[in-house]
Order: sequence, then C-alpha cells, then structure tokens
Amino acid sequence: MEFFINRSYFLNKITNVSHAISPNSPNPSYSGILIFLHPDMIHLTAQDSTMAIVTEIHPGELNQLRIESTGHMIVDAKYLIEIIRHMGGKNIHVMTVGDNMIQVSDENSKFNLFTLELERFALPDIKRPENEIKISLKNIRTTVDQIAYATSEKDARTMLMGVNFRSDGKRIITAATDSYRMALNYIDGEFSQNFNVTVPVRALQEAARIFKNDDDIIQIFVNKRKIQFVSDRTLIQSTLYDGTFPDIAAVIPKNFKSMMELDASMIIPVIERGILFKDDGVAELRMNLSEKGIQIYSGASTIGNADQQVYEVFYQGEELRMAVNGEYLLQAIKALKTLGKVRIDFTGVITPFKVSDPENKDMTMLVVPMRSSY
Amino acid sequence: MEFFINRSYFLNKITNVSHAISPNSPNPSYSGILIFLHPDMIHLTAQDSTMAIVTEIHPGELNQLRIESTGHMIVDAKYLIEIIRHMGGKNIHVMTVGDNMIQVSDENSKFNLFTLELERFALPDIKRPENEIKISLKNIRTTVDQIAYATSEKDARTMLMGVNFRSDGKRIITAATDSYRMALNYIDGEFSQNFNVTVPVRALQEAARIFKNDDDIIQIFVNKRKIQFVSDRTLIQSTLYDGTFPDIAAVIPKNFKSMMELDASMIIPVIERGILFKDDGVAELRMNLSEKGIQIYSGASTIGNADQQVYEVFYQGEELRMAVNGEYLLQAIKALKTLGKVRIDFTGVITPFKVSDPENKDMTMLVVPMRSSY
Repeated sequence: MEFFINRSYFLNKITNVSHAISPNSPNPSYSGILIFLHPDMIHLTAQDSTMAIVTEIHPGELNQLRIESTGHMIVDAKYLIEIIRHMGGKNIHVMTVGDNMIQVSDENSKFNLFTLELERFALPDIKRPENEIKISLKNIRTTVDQIAYATSEKDARTMLMGVNFRSDGKRIITAATDSYRMALNYIDGEFSQNFNVTVPVRALQEAARIFKNDDDIIQIFVNKRKIQFVSDRTLIQSTLYDGTFPDIAAVIPKNFKSMMELDASMIIPVIERGILFKDDGVAELRMNLSEKGIQIYSGASTIGNADQQVYEVFYQGEELRMAVNGEYLLQAIKALKTLGKVRIDFTGVITPFKVSDPENKDMTMLVVPMRSSY
Repeated sequence: MEFFINRSYFLNKITNVSHAISPNSPNPSYSGILIFLHPDMIHLTAQDSTMAIVTEIHPGELNQLRIESTGHMIVDAKYLIEIIRHMGGKNIHVMTVGDNMIQVSDENSKFNLFTLELERFALPDIKRPENEIKISLKNIRTTVDQIAYATSEKDARTMLMGVNFRSDGKRIITAATDSYRMALNYIDGEFSQNFNVTVPVRALQEAARIFKNDDDIIQIFVNKRKIQFVSDRTLIQSTLYDGTFPDIAAVIPKNFKSMMELDASMIIPVIERGILFKDDGVAELRMNLSEKGIQIYSGASTIGNADQQVYEVFYQGEELRMAVNGEYLLQAIKALKTLGKVRIDFTGVITPFKVSDPENKDMTMLVVPMRSSY
C-alpha cells in the first residue's frame, strides 16, 4: 500500500479514531489503527472490546489524498500519531516497506514503524442497527456536560454507569443517577419507534469531541445491544449497558414543603468554602433554612469548621434543618450552567429535593439529603 | 492575638512563606505557618529541615493591617490558604478563640481552625551570615531557567544536585553538572570577598518565584553552611551542599576539531522527532556530520526508527560520526533560549562538545557523547 496525504488532515483523522483504543488492552493489536486502502478511499478503524471508531477519507482538495496502491496494515496508534504530529512537512508519503514495516516520510526524514499482527485484529461488526434517531450535536454535548456527572463511577448495577436515553412518544428523556442524586433533561430529536437504551458515557464523550458543529444533526442507530453515532463519514459504535434503568421522570416529586431561589454565582463560592471541611472524604453541609436566610455549617473533626450565613435568598414555606453532601449539591447547581437564579424545591428533610433553573423547565436535578445525626 | 488585614495581601504572603514547607514532614508542626503578632508588625515563618522563609508585614495602605492584640500561634498552612483563597470579603478578621483555635472571618462567614503545637516548632536560626553578595533577580532567574537543568536529580555526590556559585575575583560563575553534561554562565554581581557555595535548586526557585521585579537587587548573605536571599522584607534561608564542586570553567575545551552553526528553531523539532525512539528509556541519536549536512538516525528495537537529513547547516572541520543522548542535546540547545543560531564545537567523537549561542559569550553548555557501538 502507498499513499500521499496532507499531514494535518491525516493527523486529525488518526487521532479521532485512536480514541477507541484502551490504554491497557490485553490484545496488542488493539493498540493499533487499521489503515485499509481501497482504490478510491482510505478506511481507518480502531477499537477496544466495547467501542469502535471508523472513518473514511475520500480524495479531496483539503486532504490532497493520492492513493498509489491498495492494501492494509495495522500500525501502533501512539507512535504513528506522535511521529506525524512532530513532522514538519505539509504533505506526507506513507508506504509499506517489506512485510512488517510502514514508512512515513517527508522531504528530509523517513520514519519506519513495525506493523502489528493483522490476524489478531478482529474487524468490528458495524452492521447498522434498525432503529434510527436524529439528535443535534448540541444536545449530545449538553448530555455530556450537564447530565453525565450524575452517573455512578462504579456500580454492580452497571446501567447506572451510563446515561439513559428513552422516548416518551414525543420527546427524548436523557437521565443519569448513582441513586444519591439524579439528573434529567428533555431534548428534541426525531425518531419513529420508541426506544430505551443506556449508553456508556465514553461513547457520548467521543461523539461530543469528534463531531464538529453544534448544529449538525447526528444520526443514531440503535438496537438492544449497540449504538452507532454517524456523521461526517465517521462512525462511533459502542455496546450498551444491560438492565432496566430506573424511570427517573416518574420519581420527580410534584409537591413541595418549601422552596428557595438564590443566585448561582453567590451560592457556589459558599458551598466551595463549606466543602473544604471533610470527614472521611465526605463534606456534610448542615443547613438551617428559613425566610431569614440560610446558615450553612460544616466541620472536620481534626481540622476545624465553617459557619456561613447567606441572606440574599428568597425562601418560602416551612423552616427546615437538614444535612446534604456538599459535593452533590455543588455539582447539581454547577451542572445547570447558569450564573443567574437557581431554584431549590424541598419535599422534607430526608426526601429528595429538586434543583433547577427557572429559565429552563426541561432540566431537573434531584439530590437525596444525608441521614445525619443533625 | 487579633488583627484585621486585606485578604488578598495576606493570602499572597502566607502562600509565599508556605513554599518552605515539605509536603511530607515527619513533624506535623512543620506543616504550619507561625503567625507572630508584634505591636507594630506581623512576622510569618514557615520551614522544613533545610529551608525557612520569613516575611514581615508592617501596617500600610496596601495591606490595611490593624493589630488589635499581640500573640502567636501556628496554623496548618494548607487549610489556612484554602480558606482565605475561597473567602469573598475584601478584608478579613483573624483572632484566637480559646486555647487551640484560630478564627478567620468576614461579614457572613466564620472559619475555625485548630492550631498546631507551638513547642514542636523550633524557631529557625536566621542569624545573618557575614559574607554579602548582591545579584539582580534577573540573574537568579536565568540561573534557574538556563543552568539548573544540568544538575543531577539524585547523586551520592550531593553537591551535584545544586548550582555552584563562585567568584573568580571579577565576576560570578554559576555552574551545574550531573557529570554527563554541564551548564555554565558568567553573571554580574557585587561582592567583597571570594566565595564558592553550592545552593539547592529549590532555594533558587523560591527566590525566583517570590521576589518580583527582574531589576530588583537581591541581597545574598552566605557562609560555609547556609545562604539567605533577602528582598522586600522577606528572607529565604537554605542550607548549602557540602563538598568540593568541580571547577567547570577550567574544563571547558579550547581547541576544537569541527564546528557547526544551525538555527535552533530548525534543529529542535528534528531532535524532538529523533527522541521518540528510545531503548531502555534512552534516545541515542547517531549523527553523521560533514560539510554536506548532518544525518541523524535513531531507533528503538521493537518500535521502529527515524532517519533524518538536515542540510541547512554551516559546518567546518573534520567529518565526524558520533552518538549522543538526544535528551541532553535537546535540553542544552533549549536552555540557550534562542530561536536564532546555535553553535556546536566538537573536540572529537567521545570527548565533550560545546553548545553555545554566538550572541552570548557568557553561557556555555557541554555535553559528553555516548560511548556507542556506532
């Protein structure tokens, strides 16, 4: 195989597909990128056991691709990327040398890399699942930036490590929870059949990173076992999590005992100071809430404590004394991505409270209070 | 003790002195800052077993210091800094609460921190050594940025872990070596007596970081055992390394077999590509040097190799075939901090070569070639 191509264009494409690679794969061939030259295009594939990314390069003005001879081989992604990143030329020349080497060269330099074993690289099955959904890239990015934080990092119920996408007939609900807090958002999209799938965060992050413009519509193909994100001649495929994801939309409380409204930009630093005091890694904030304002106390037994007053609060309803994991409260407020008002609705001192942006009815955060001696 | 002070001013001062603290001191009191209130000033002290930083705060317009009552205590540096960094008020109020607490407060928040045991904090002996030297801060920064790289990270000859400062009667020579490469610079300064001391890099880094303006003249006081850097009511004291530092100025070769001149901005990326290929962590660059240009080859047995040609070189003298540690060559060239010409003078294929900036006669880098099978 032999081809010429614009260096920075090719660097971008191999970097994109390389994100499918796990740093510690037991199969060394899975640390490589399959470069497959057809007469009229290059096919790049990288994968690990749960994910594959495939992209096509067709000759064009931007990439200056010229294919001299077809063929295929697998090259270690890390070294290939490092070498091409550091090269100086505008265009590069790539070709096989002997049975087990690839040469990348420009005018003044030649780099030879051993290739990896083709037999150990099982081509991923990228057959298209039957169910199609269309979502804007912006909505995928919102899911990554504002919903995925509430997933569980490690859980025997593996589906809690993913973000759930389901249709309610009209819209798409994205939801995440580790059972101590929940994040939920209604987004727009097109679909013809109802679906309910739980997607690994990593697949969403790669879609958010690799695809370009917020306004692009991403085609999503999905069945019970896998999901594909397709745009711009690139396909990101991931396995899905098994199991029944809790119906978070159904558990959002409707009746509240109290509510408060305050400025995100004012309360965030208060909480950040409060969570400096942790016992066993957990920052318990003890809050006294009333129409006179809120008092937030936190302490660490060997270090000290903090006692903070906030008066710039609109509060309505029953006075409450409750304890909350400060990190969870902070993440819920920050995930709203507003510097304006935040509204918190309380159902009681041990039942979940709702954190939301009055300007955005689609997104809801829930946090379960701590059962404290307080 | 009780005082009021401008928050960001105080934060800056406690952060500065806290740099004397080692993260893993066996003595917990050494993780603290001694805050000593005199009737007309605050004295802040932090230390570890080799270093102490002391600073004075006198009442002034900038700091808004108001001392209500004298006294002293030791407070954990990390928490004190974190709390004061996160506070919102312009001014803060600091006072003792009971026997073992300090309270830091502004209008809406109160933070209480347990204090550390005073008895375990031996006050550092900051008696002024007799020998005085004056050096501009700029020259100290140059020493940190361009000479210190050549020190040894770990060596039984501990003095190789420091930067040597010695007078030759007229000027000051700063030098560092790990015995595989050397860096040397002549700087200007005032001194009345000859001296020859080897200073821990960390003390120089703190002086370069804490003091402000390049043009400031730093007073240095030194004897056989310790060094003090004094400026702006702040004192940085460090122990010195024992032992006789090699006289690097005397070993700089005078007679050369060949020389070459090339652009730093051109050769740096060539070397960076070459050192991507390492065996056992060492990137051996094999160089063929002649008037026709230079060829640089490097290889890693399981990964591949690089073969690079550079024609934009002025070369004079004997043709040479030699091997060099690519990282050392790269660091020497980069430490010159020039994007213009670099000159390399060769004495042979196994004896040190000299790397220098033709525009700056004061600074010299030496690198010992590798004894390679090549």
